[in-house]
Amino acid sequence: MKKITAFAPATVANVCCGFDILGFAIFAPADEVTVSFRKETGIVIQKIVGDGGRLPLDSAKNTAGVAVQSFLNAIDSSQGVAIEIKKKLPLGSGMGSSASSAAAALVAINELMGNIFTRKELVPFALAAEKMACGVAHADNVAPSIMGGFVLVRDYENLDLIQIPSFPPLSCCLVHPHLEVNTSDSRKVLKSTISLKDSLTQNGNLATLMVGLMSGDYSLISRSLHDVIAEPERSAFIPDFKNIKNLALSLGALGFGISGSGPSVFALCKDEETAKRIGKAVSERFQRLNLGSDEFISGINNKGAWIE
Amino acid sequence: MKKITAFAPATVANVCCGFDILGFAIFAPADEVTVSFRKETGIVIQKIVGDGGRLPLDSAKNTAGVAVQSFLNAIDSSQGVAIEIKKKLPLGSGMGSSASSAAAALVAINELMGNIFTRKELVPFALAAEKMACGVAHADNVAPSIMGGFVLVRDYENLDLIQIPSFPPLSCCLVHPHLEVNTSDSRKVLKSTISLKDSLTQNGNLATLMVGLMSGDYSLISRSLHDVIAEPERSAFIPDFKNIKNLALSLGALGFGISGSGPSVFALCKDEETAKRIGKAVSERFQRLNLGSDEFISGINNKGAWIE
Repeated sequence: MKKITAFAPATVANVCCGFDILGFAIFAPADEVTVSFRKETGIVIQKIVGDGGRLPLDSAKNTAGVAVQSFLNAIDSSQGVAIEIKKKLPLGSGMGSSASSAAAALVAINELMGNIFTRKELVPFALAAEKMACGVAHADNVAPSIMGGFVLVRDYENLDLIQIPSFPPLSCCLVHPHLEVNTSDSRKVLKSTISLKDSLTQNGNLATLMVGLMSGDYSLISRSLHDVIAEPERSAFIPDFKNIKNLALSLGALGFGISGSGPSVFALCKDEETAKRIGKAVSERFQRLNLGSDEFISGINNKGAWIE
Repeated sequence: MKKITAFAPATVANVCCGFDILGFAIFAPADEVTVSFRKETGIVIQKIVGDGGRLPLDSAKNTAGVAVQSFLNAIDSSQGVAIEIKKKLPLGSGMGSSASSAAAALVAINELMGNIFTRKELVPFALAAEKMACGVAHADNVAPSIMGGFVLVRDYENLDLIQIPSFPPLSCCLVHPHLEVNTSDSRKVLKSTISLKDSLTQNGNLATLMVGLMSGDYSLISRSLHDVIAEPERSAFIPDFKNIKNLALSLGALGFGISGSGPSVFALCKDEETAKRIGKAVSERFQRLNLGSDEFISGINNKGAWIE
């Protein structure tokens, strides 16, 4: 029986000024999901490795299972599907772990079915899984993981996804300190209203980031990477955040912030050398706080999930 | 004695999703300001025509006078200056009338002084005038009037002005209904806090507008031209706003909104023909409400204020 294996990468959502509406994909880590048809109807998660036994084998509770079910519903298919997951992304890390398995499963089933859908068209199926896993259907991880590059969510109600057409060379340093922040906990600290002033600040920065990316202007990118909405509240979850941020900026980061809802932190840099230097320094700082951590250094992944 | 005459054009501030931080310049109408040195110290407004006697001749209360004083202060000069103003922009129209006279005066005095400052460097002097005239120092009119094109104000505190590097052909239709809205009145209706949801909507739209302008994608431009912050409150000042907006959109406007704080309304269009058609239809609609109006059809002015 034919099998397809797809890889879907980690993503950095929010990207400072793009809180809730911007994300980008990197190359590694990437979840690996193998999908095959089975004779019996129903979706079966046959195996999950790398999750320490923490992810549900029940396909109705697993993001890969829910995403594939949503895909099959859309084409009115009762095709039986078997799924195997090699989990490479740390859970609850703020690197888009739940999104990644769903994204890989969707790209694999789509390939297996003869690529019925475009990459962009796959995103709504992954959103069904995000909603199940996180309580809210946020696209700022799933969209870049599936589509690649920087993806802006202009409108959630009508799901208007905009891939930023161009940007200059960038290197991302992600550091995952070994502590878990629950996505819904980190949502709770956010206020439902904000000052008009803060809104304008965030708005000006995100608009500038778009101009900076598209014109390849590192100075604009750097000036815009600030978050006045989520970071002031969520940084409390990350020990010594402010000093670590200052350290990264002093070492040449264009910007530094919380990846998704944390606790991972990221630095966007002009080149890999700077990203590596920052990764090392940030990890050492966490170490001093008796926190183990993992570093991931990667360019921006323009293609998103890929087939083996 | 050498005289320099400069023209500074009307501007559309806010541009829907760019409330308070984005504006663009058109070609006409444009205020005409003539500046010359005088032997005596002090700034004198010699003549104002076209204002119906409503603008102050006292240079400390006139935006052109205040702007020139601010310019002279910056270079520690006690040079005497004479100013003549031909007012072409309607007052209190939402077309950047106060900004325009200040912008023209600054470009003229700068030329007269041998272009000490870049266009961007002139903006802070005009802000001093805006503060005097409107109570707040907003740059979304003065910056495009001086610099041209679309100008984004990323940061008011450190005055970070970003000129959008490229955009596709656009035609603007401005219609000024003959009613006056005081800028401070139209500020009062705005709330000082907004919902996080509205902030994200505005943020997503402005970011999309930047991508649309820079990639020349009319569909993105059109999808992004919405304002969920100011328009819902300020449209109450403009009779039948909602129907007029729907009319303009049905006639092919990419977007339609209030220019600045109103009462002028604008439509951004792909071409002049559409802009003219909309201008005519909107004016007719105001006519039915017994409101006279003026229409201005113009492309986007990339250079801003100019010397005769």
